Formats: sequence, structure tokens, C-alpha cells
Amino acid sequence: MIEIHGTHGSPFVRKVYIALAYKNIAYKNVHQMPFAKDAEYEKLNPMGRIPTLVDGDLIIGDSKVICRHLENTHPEPALYPRDPADRARAEWFEELAGDRVAEYTAGIFFQRFMKPLAFKQEPDEELITKLTTKRLPPLLDYLEPLMPADGFLFGDFMMADLSVASPFFNASYAGYEVDADQYPRLAGMIQRVKEQPAVAGVLAEEAKMFAGG
Amino acid sequence: MIEIHGTHGSPFVRKVYIALAYKNIAYKNVHQMPFAKDAEYEKLNPMGRIPTLVDGDLIIGDSKVICRHLENTHPEPALYPRDPADRARAEWFEELAGDRVAEYTAGIFFQRFMKPLAFKQEPDEELITKLTTKRLPPLLDYLEPLMPADGFLFGDFMMADLSVASPFFNASYAGYEVDADQYPRLAGMIQRVKEQPAVAGVLAEEAKMFAGG
Repeated sequence: MIEIHGTHGSPFVRKVYIALAYKNIAYKNVHQMPFAKDAEYEKLNPMGRIPTLVDGDLIIGDSKVICRHLENTHPEPALYPRDPADRARAEWFEELAGDRVAEYTAGIFFQRFMKPLAFKQEPDEELITKLTTKRLPPLLDYLEPLMPADGFLFGDFMMADLSVASPFFNASYAGYEVDADQYPRLAGMIQRVKEQPAVAGVLAEEAKMFAGG
Repeated sequence: MIEIHGTHGSPFVRKVYIALAYKNIAYKNVHQMPFAKDAEYEKLNPMGRIPTLVDGDLIIGDSKVICRHLENTHPEPALYPRDPADRARAEWFEELAGDRVAEYTAGIFFQRFMKPLAFKQEPDEELITKLTTKRLPPLLDYLEPLMPADGFLFGDFMMADLSVASPFFNASYAGYEVDADQYPRLAGMIQRVKEQPAVAGVLAEEAKMFAGG
């Protein structure tokens, strides 16, 4: 059976849990924190990141590669468009969102949510201001006109929508919401992704975990 | 016609040039330096990285997504394995090599090659020592047993081989070579990739550029 090494709350692990739920694939969850300096885990994933998929002798330490692999082995219901140009667009959204968008929103999440919760420390407000007023806006400006006014990027709900929305769920835990007046398409899309049943199910489990349940 | 925005010398642009040559796809090169704070370019690629592919209204700003798109639209000769598990392994090698391996080798390349050449500044030897003795070794230790003793990772030369080797070509410009005594499989594979005709052709153009030709 597929093992997923990771934990709730990561925007990357979340994508994989949702893909598995959406495609109705059975798996075993193995609890793993990121960057834990855990020598055994670093044999699987030398970057120390989560998630890692282990399926027999197949070991894959990146959420994007894992999600594409799940699509290859379980094509239905589809999470990537079939048209080659749309497929490339979808993968580019996933790349961009998993890179700088995730980096900046993770900064907000860490400072304002994890630091007080896990380390009993004050957030670095100067850093948060830099992330929200300098770093994120060029990415939001880029994304906004590319987002759909209704529905999803490629018709049905797919991985590209989830990839763009997932890092903002973490920012939202930290009290940061995409401004719906300035970025109505992006804010609307994030809300519609949140309401998808497979997404809502995983977010409910996260909420339980953060509540200490 | 496909446009590739980028410049010789980037390990990421190099992969795309080689894939295009290998698949015999015509393209137009548009010169672009990375992180140039060029507002026009950032409309195409908000991270300011290179390469970006522009093909009509398709705009893709990541070398991995570009290479997979070229594979989808021009499947022969293949640069990715057909077996789903091997395909996922190949993509994981490309992900890992394009992330921390590229980051650390780019550090060596920048300090020891670009800084003296372009900025007439001395390299930061302390940083170079940290990269070569602390940061890179865990990645080399991870890669070594996974590399083939002969030939390539999935039989024929493919993108996974090129992805792993490409960042080390940059380290090599800066005088850093993977130790063939300690990492014989990895060092041998990098050498075999260098000798592939499509690779040798692009490396010869790079050498001309660096020589001011």
C-alpha cells in the first residue's frame, strides 16, 4: 500500500491527501514533520521536506511529482487537463504556487500561527509586513487576470486550482486573506476550492489537529 | 515559432536548449538575463527566472514544465521513460537536481566564476567551503548509489541524466569537480552526459560565449 510520510497543515501534503481522496486511492499515513533533522527520513528525502511517497521500491519526495504520478496510475477522475498546452499551463501554475507563493505565505503562517502556537514566541511583524506588502503583491498581480471569474481554471476542479489555493489556506490560518476588492477572481477561486468536498474534508481534519484533537 | 527567453550558462536554460536540439525542434532564442528586474520580462515570468517558453499564447516559466511539454508535443526521441514508476523517478531526480543541487552548485559557480568575471570581485571562500564540505555532500551521498555504474539511469540518455549532470557543469566552470574516488558512479555519469552530441554542442556554444566570442 502507498505510504505518505507527512503531516496535516503543510500546503504540499494537503495537495497529496486531497488528490488521494479525490481519486479514492487507499494509503497509509506515516507521521513526519518537515526539516526534522531525522537521519532515517533523510534517507528517503535528502531535502527533509514533506510529503514523501513510498510505494514498494518507489520513493518520491515532491508533491508535484507525486500528484502527477497518481494521475498517471489512476487517471480518473482527472486532476490535470488533457490538452497539451493546458496541461503545461496547469503545471506552470503548480510550479509557481509551490515555489514563491508557498514560500511567502509559509512565512506569514510561520510567524503569525506556528511561532506563537508551537514556540510561544512573538511574530516578526516587520517580516510579515514585507511579505504582505512587497513580496506577495507582484505574484497576486500576475495571478489575478489569469484566474477564472467563475468555476475553475480548466472547467472542472483540478490540481491547478488546488495548487494555487493551497498556500493561501495557510496564510488564512494566520489571519491573512487575499483582498477580494483588489483581487476578486483569485479570492473567489480560493473560496470555491475550499468548498470542494475532497478539500473541505481534509481541511476539517486539519482544523481538528490544530485544535489538539 | 517557439521562443526561448534565456541565456547560455544557466543549468536550466541548458536543459531546454539540449532538449530542443535532441528533438530537432526549431526555436528562436530571445536573450534574457535572470533576475534582471526587467518589468517587461516579469510580465512573462513573475519570478524573474530563466528560461521562459513563449509559443503564441502559451507562456511557461519553468525548465521542468517546458521539457515535459516538449516531450508531450514531440514524443520522439523520448527524454522521459514510459513506465509510470520510472517516469516518477525521473521527475524526482529532475526536481531534486533543479532545487538544492542547483542552488549549491550555483553558489560555487557565482562565487568563483561569475563574481571575478562579471563583477571583478573576490569570491567568498568561506561560503564556497561550506557549500563543498557541508551542503553538497549529503546530496552526493544520496545520489551516488542511485546512479548507474555504466550507461544512463533509464537505459538511453534522458532528461533525468541531463538534469542531474547540468548543475555540476556550472560547478566545473568554477573548478569544482565531483570526486571520482568518492563518487565514482556520479562522476562517471556526469562525464558520459557531457559526451552526448546534443550536450557537447550546447556546451561548445557556452564556451564560446564565456570566451567573449
